[in-house]
Amino acid sequence: MYSVGVIGAGQLARMMQVPAIELGIDLRVFAEADGASAALSASRVGDYTDFDQLLDFAKSVDVITFDHEHVPAELLHKLEAQGLSVRPGPAALIHAQNKLTMRKKLSELGLPQPAWLAAKTEQDVASFLSDHGPEIVVKTPIGGYDGKGVRVISEVSEVQDWLENLGKLGGELLLEQKVDFSRELAQLSARSPSGEFSTWQVVETRQAQGVCSEVISPAPNADGAKTAEIAKRISEGLGVIGVMAVELFETVAGEILVNELAMRPHNSGHFSIEGSQTSQFEQHLRAVLDLPLGSTKPTAPVAVMVNLLGVDDQNDFVSRYPKAMREFPEVSFHSYEKSARKGRKMGHLTVIGDNQESLLRNAQAARAALYGPIA
Amino acid sequence: MYSVGVIGAGQLARMMQVPAIELGIDLRVFAEADGASAALSASRVGDYTDFDQLLDFAKSVDVITFDHEHVPAELLHKLEAQGLSVRPGPAALIHAQNKLTMRKKLSELGLPQPAWLAAKTEQDVASFLSDHGPEIVVKTPIGGYDGKGVRVISEVSEVQDWLENLGKLGGELLLEQKVDFSRELAQLSARSPSGEFSTWQVVETRQAQGVCSEVISPAPNADGAKTAEIAKRISEGLGVIGVMAVELFETVAGEILVNELAMRPHNSGHFSIEGSQTSQFEQHLRAVLDLPLGSTKPTAPVAVMVNLLGVDDQNDFVSRYPKAMREFPEVSFHSYEKSARKGRKMGHLTVIGDNQESLLRNAQAARAALYGPIA
Repeated sequence: MYSVGVIGAGQLARMMQVPAIELGIDLRVFAEADGASAALSASRVGDYTDFDQLLDFAKSVDVITFDHEHVPAELLHKLEAQGLSVRPGPAALIHAQNKLTMRKKLSELGLPQPAWLAAKTEQDVASFLSDHGPEIVVKTPIGGYDGKGVRVISEVSEVQDWLENLGKLGGELLLEQKVDFSRELAQLSARSPSGEFSTWQVVETRQAQGVCSEVISPAPNADGAKTAEIAKRISEGLGVIGVMAVELFETVAGEILVNELAMRPHNSGHFSIEGSQTSQFEQHLRAVLDLPLGSTKPTAPVAVMVNLLGVDDQNDFVSRYPKAMREFPEVSFHSYEKSARKGRKMGHLTVIGDNQESLLRNAQAARAALYGPIA
Repeated sequence: MYSVGVIGAGQLARMMQVPAIELGIDLRVFAEADGASAALSASRVGDYTDFDQLLDFAKSVDVITFDHEHVPAELLHKLEAQGLSVRPGPAALIHAQNKLTMRKKLSELGLPQPAWLAAKTEQDVASFLSDHGPEIVVKTPIGGYDGKGVRVISEVSEVQDWLENLGKLGGELLLEQKVDFSRELAQLSARSPSGEFSTWQVVETRQAQGVCSEVISPAPNADGAKTAEIAKRISEGLGVIGVMAVELFETVAGEILVNELAMRPHNSGHFSIEGSQTSQFEQHLRAVLDLPLGSTKPTAPVAVMVNLLGVDDQNDFVSRYPKAMREFPEVSFHSYEKSARKGRKMGHLTVIGDNQESLLRNAQAARAALYGPIA
């Protein structure tokens, strides 16, 4: 029997449990606390920054992988030094953990990305502002996600606090040109230790307040060959194992630029549970176990996914299931069973079919039904 | 949060866990022993014939349902008398537990079925043999499944042992005409307490040694309107809640006759995991919770499912995953993680697409790859 250990017990670990059950893989989860989204399969509750706990967990499974990117790379290197399987490995994962490391590597590989600079001083920021202003994007290299650790500024003073605390933020800030994009895309792929590489169709992602709100698969009129090639060069260039999401800007001029990387199943790929013969969660398990990858053939011409974000500390959209399911029998409902918090990713909806406009309308209406009165 | 308790921890409970994770339902399993197929979610290991244990379990969930049909009806009536939800209820379930009770009820409802007789004596058997021979089918009313408790006989002496032990077998034997069928069909449906009723397309089932071996959805050239109507009359007539499978004979003359009933997800419906917008496992959870039923629209023109049966006490087909997945990337693999035993249902494969012949060939070839040499 194959076994996989997942560090982190959020919704990604939860959704990995589904193909683990179907394929007969023993999935074990290292949770930070009781009551997490993947609590069902949590076989350990502990501290992932404690090497002895990590080591003990890693020894209990064939391979460890991740629900998030927060495990310190030096601990993962120590696991590898003991002959344990970590996928993706720390040498690859560092590019998803540190945005500056990622920018440097993509520049080396000659991949298209926004103009960028590593900044340590006010002068660095002022200079980049004058070259690329009136507005630029400033990011902390580590620890940011879903819009956190990212600021759009037009004055140096707006990142004064970060400049004064560089030590805690990795020693440098990442400055990026603010791209005049017409839309955002995401290219999902998977790569196995044997070198097998597979992509899904490129998707269009729509954000609300810095958080993924809607995903349309495939992205209408996108150059999927180009985005798949970018993903392949990154995946191979960085030695990524498992699922990787490359978030992309498409500019008004039709240019494609790399925005962010994630080396794990990703919100932009949730559509694949219903929308692809092999979901991103199954593909990730296959890849980290070095099993052959499954077919990513779409199950329908179009798949639309909308996120269910927390509106407050109270809302439990599951109590609106009767109304929403009655009105939308063709919608697939997903709840992560997380405690409610404003803006938190609490679940998602997927609908597959032929017509993008009507699918998106239905998904949005089903979401609205889940946040309306109970009836 | 909704919660469902499942009595029994076989592969059906295991596969119910998947939609429970997706929908955010707390699924609890009452297992008979550690190490069962649905061990992951086993929240209790005990004896389902012990009323106090059953009561305690039933009180911990919104509703209890079943992985198998072996829980004594009198215990379920006692649970209902205490106001607990049992779905399907014992008044319906008895027709799946006792084949004679089922035959009597279907006769009352005027549904098409083989000629049958309740037999207590050698004379009863001899008389039915002379009316319907040269061969007839004899069944023990309770306890039979997958070909067990069923004999095809041409002489009374072939059931002499059963006639001598009638007390243990429910007091009577069920005699049935041996139907000259051209093929077997199965009509899967679901019904909720609110009265909502939904069917999947009728499937063709092919048996090997009395066990389901292959399922083709939809059954080519079948009268789906007729089989759906039969399912509806049974489901409503018996007050079934949840998924029900009606196994049917199609005779050479095109007649449809009811063979067996199951009131739970069923082997003939496993195709629906990939082949339908709502799987039988999700629909069963929706139905027993009285949630609106999901769409049963097919995800592809054809779905083919083949069972993986144990060949001996050793074979672990999961160790052949690398070879089979490499050759068949479009196949969905399912392992129930049960210990190997000859003839035991160990897993299944599903493939969806356009062409029935090529899908069946691929599914059979993938099955052969799983039982061949490791490579």
